[in-house]
Amino acid sequence: MTVVDIIEKKKLKQQLSKQEIDFVVEGFTNGSIPDYQMSALLMAILLNGMTDEETFELTDAMLHSGDIVDMSALGGTVVDKHSTGGIGDSTTLALAPILACCGVYVAKMSGRGLGFTGGTIDKLESIPGFDTSLNEEEFFDVVKRVGCAVIGQTANLAPADKKIYALRDVTGTVNSIPLICASIMSKKLASGSDTILLDVKYGSGAFMPDPESALELATKMVTIGTLAGKRIGALITDMQQPLSDHVGNSLELVGIVEVLRGKKNRLYYEIKEVAVRLLALTGKYTLQSAEKAFCEAIESGRALDKLAQMVQAQHGDPDYIRHPERFEIGTRDTVLADRDGYVSHMVAADIGRAVTHLGGGRMTKSDVIDFSVGVVMHVAIGTPVRKGDVLCEVFHNNGKGLSEAKQLIANAITIGDEQPQPHKIAYAYVGKDGVELY
Amino acid sequence: MTVVDIIEKKKLKQQLSKQEIDFVVEGFTNGSIPDYQMSALLMAILLNGMTDEETFELTDAMLHSGDIVDMSALGGTVVDKHSTGGIGDSTTLALAPILACCGVYVAKMSGRGLGFTGGTIDKLESIPGFDTSLNEEEFFDVVKRVGCAVIGQTANLAPADKKIYALRDVTGTVNSIPLICASIMSKKLASGSDTILLDVKYGSGAFMPDPESALELATKMVTIGTLAGKRIGALITDMQQPLSDHVGNSLELVGIVEVLRGKKNRLYYEIKEVAVRLLALTGKYTLQSAEKAFCEAIESGRALDKLAQMVQAQHGDPDYIRHPERFEIGTRDTVLADRDGYVSHMVAADIGRAVTHLGGGRMTKSDVIDFSVGVVMHVAIGTPVRKGDVLCEVFHNNGKGLSEAKQLIANAITIGDEQPQPHKIAYAYVGKDGVELY
Repeated sequence: MTVVDIIEKKKLKQQLSKQEIDFVVEGFTNGSIPDYQMSALLMAILLNGMTDEETFELTDAMLHSGDIVDMSALGGTVVDKHSTGGIGDSTTLALAPILACCGVYVAKMSGRGLGFTGGTIDKLESIPGFDTSLNEEEFFDVVKRVGCAVIGQTANLAPADKKIYALRDVTGTVNSIPLICASIMSKKLASGSDTILLDVKYGSGAFMPDPESALELATKMVTIGTLAGKRIGALITDMQQPLSDHVGNSLELVGIVEVLRGKKNRLYYEIKEVAVRLLALTGKYTLQSAEKAFCEAIESGRALDKLAQMVQAQHGDPDYIRHPERFEIGTRDTVLADRDGYVSHMVAADIGRAVTHLGGGRMTKSDVIDFSVGVVMHVAIGTPVRKGDVLCEVFHNNGKGLSEAKQLIANAITIGDEQPQPHKIAYAYVGKDGVELY
Repeated sequence: MTVVDIIEKKKLKQQLSKQEIDFVVEGFTNGSIPDYQMSALLMAILLNGMTDEETFELTDAMLHSGDIVDMSALGGTVVDKHSTGGIGDSTTLALAPILACCGVYVAKMSGRGLGFTGGTIDKLESIPGFDTSLNEEEFFDVVKRVGCAVIGQTANLAPADKKIYALRDVTGTVNSIPLICASIMSKKLASGSDTILLDVKYGSGAFMPDPESALELATKMVTIGTLAGKRIGALITDMQQPLSDHVGNSLELVGIVEVLRGKKNRLYYEIKEVAVRLLALTGKYTLQSAEKAFCEAIESGRALDKLAQMVQAQHGDPDYIRHPERFEIGTRDTVLADRDGYVSHMVAADIGRAVTHLGGGRMTKSDVIDFSVGVVMHVAIGTPVRKGDVLCEVFHNNGKGLSEAKQLIANAITIGDEQPQPHKIAYAYVGKDGVELY
């Protein structure tokens, strides 16, 4: 078996065998297959595709390139949610305590963000004292006691993915459904949960440009997860505008506390949809009983308490959760509407970029994040506005990046004459038995 | 401009601009674009193709990466023939003297062979004393005095091609029509002739498997050559069996002397077709007058004399041309027919491989060629045979590689019950105004 023979096969759109895929992943990870052969193969895969069987074998080979976390010691149902990422996506911060209130474990290992705002880990670190680097024993102990914990990824999960992704990033081979699927699923399957809800976003602030391509990716991932023996489903959700009104690190925590206090905004409905689907997936709930449990967790105040418990268990100051006004926030400025009309379109990614300009995200791995900056949106797609209305507040420190940020935001928000349909939060749900359109 | 943007464009089947193609060829040749990006782009080109404009710009960029030979000092029509290569293809050895007899210059820079039999240079070096490394002044002097000369390539022609080809060879990106076209044409245009006849072969012993793909490549090359201001045409010829009855180094020279003495075999008719088309391309001849000049050059014995003159001018012993029985030839063995029937099929490449096993070709660049070994075919496709008839003679030295060679040849020649149509030598001619089928 040679890698050139394998490239030739994929060039001719033939199906690669498990042995061939294992050979490639192992060889590339251990360095015996050079970058230039791997990139040619990746381009052939991007252009000629992969069957579900091939994608499963690729995922499986990448999964087995590193550690596989064993959560059986927890002795209960362990759920996980994976979002393909977007602007103002802080759902994990609310989902973890809500799901824990509903009797399932959330043992989440999260990444740090690169570009746009920070990742979940960065947002949590804006709480003074919060420790995201618990060792495995402490981590499992918090999960067991509180029901949920969120730490930074420490295990060596799917190192093959790290190496392949770095090459894809510089060879124009990122936007391939089988490659994206294998990249996400290899890490997800290695992280040990038995029930997984994927939140696949589409739109200007997401990886997938339209609902159709998001649906294709979601279907592939659900198929691969099911083949791997997991209970798995996927929501296709809208990322044509920021998910939360709050975009930034401390600001998103403020927004999460509002939701846990019962504020019914877009973020609330998205979190509810994810939680209900995930609880139903476990088999412990029907959609109806899951919805009831979700509402009860919030209305009773138990979910907010649970978040405070988790923060305390991870050595953070829980008072910031009970009194989010304690978060230090930058100096306020605003972006105003320059005409009458309706908000008709947003380039969500540019609102994320604006926050990065303010210092709230990383351009490079070594950048230090300013937790206090960000944006609070006052409008969504469909909102009527008059000239001079505040479109959003911009919080900055000493004017750093302010003019670029304001310019980006002003250009990112289009005001038109016609009122567009407000966007649905979810477009479809993909389960192992098929697709439900919303 | 970044190489990733250029890869993205080609992935989407968009046309690359001259600037983009120059950027890639220059960057890859000077090392600023790494192999892994180039191989991803090459795979995208292979799968998504290139327009004629793109292929021309690629050829042009590769051509300008090195020296361009100026033959204007010769002050006459300089013709060149390029064969895409095959088994027993020694046509240059006869064409050079024949064309010189017809009043055009042949100033040929040839490569050494790798795999199968040697290249033209190796074959000439089987004549004692023959010098294939004349400097430019001596080379032009021989061309001027004799009308033809053949040397090894010394100028730094299209170094970009050398580097790109080496990468294509190990990344499954060889069989792309635009890439093959740019590779051949960049070197051909750099070598300075004004009239070029391409001999594009198809079949088991050639690069292109069938006449259709050979025609596609030929059409692309004629288009590119015409855009570059050359008088150019292409013959599509059959390589489903060895072109010459003689396969080997000294043996092919023996076969060439037979043709120049007037023996009318397949090799003769192929040489005639190439010579007539090439002379007509110069504009100095019609097809009719070219044919007449060709026959006269051979029948008068002038072409054989001319070859002897060229050998002498390049310090070889011309007596070997007049008395080819002086070539030292290996020990004779034979491959016999194992049944009655008709020769129905040959794997020409395996007959080439057999000669390499005997020592007549190179596996690696540093191998030393044994000029004395080879094969003389007694049959062609369509020949009726009886069990025990000699299919071919095998000439070896001390049995080296003999059993492998005989086995390969026996398997390469199929004898069937039905007599197949004898194969035409040429399938089509491609001129700048279109295709003529034979």
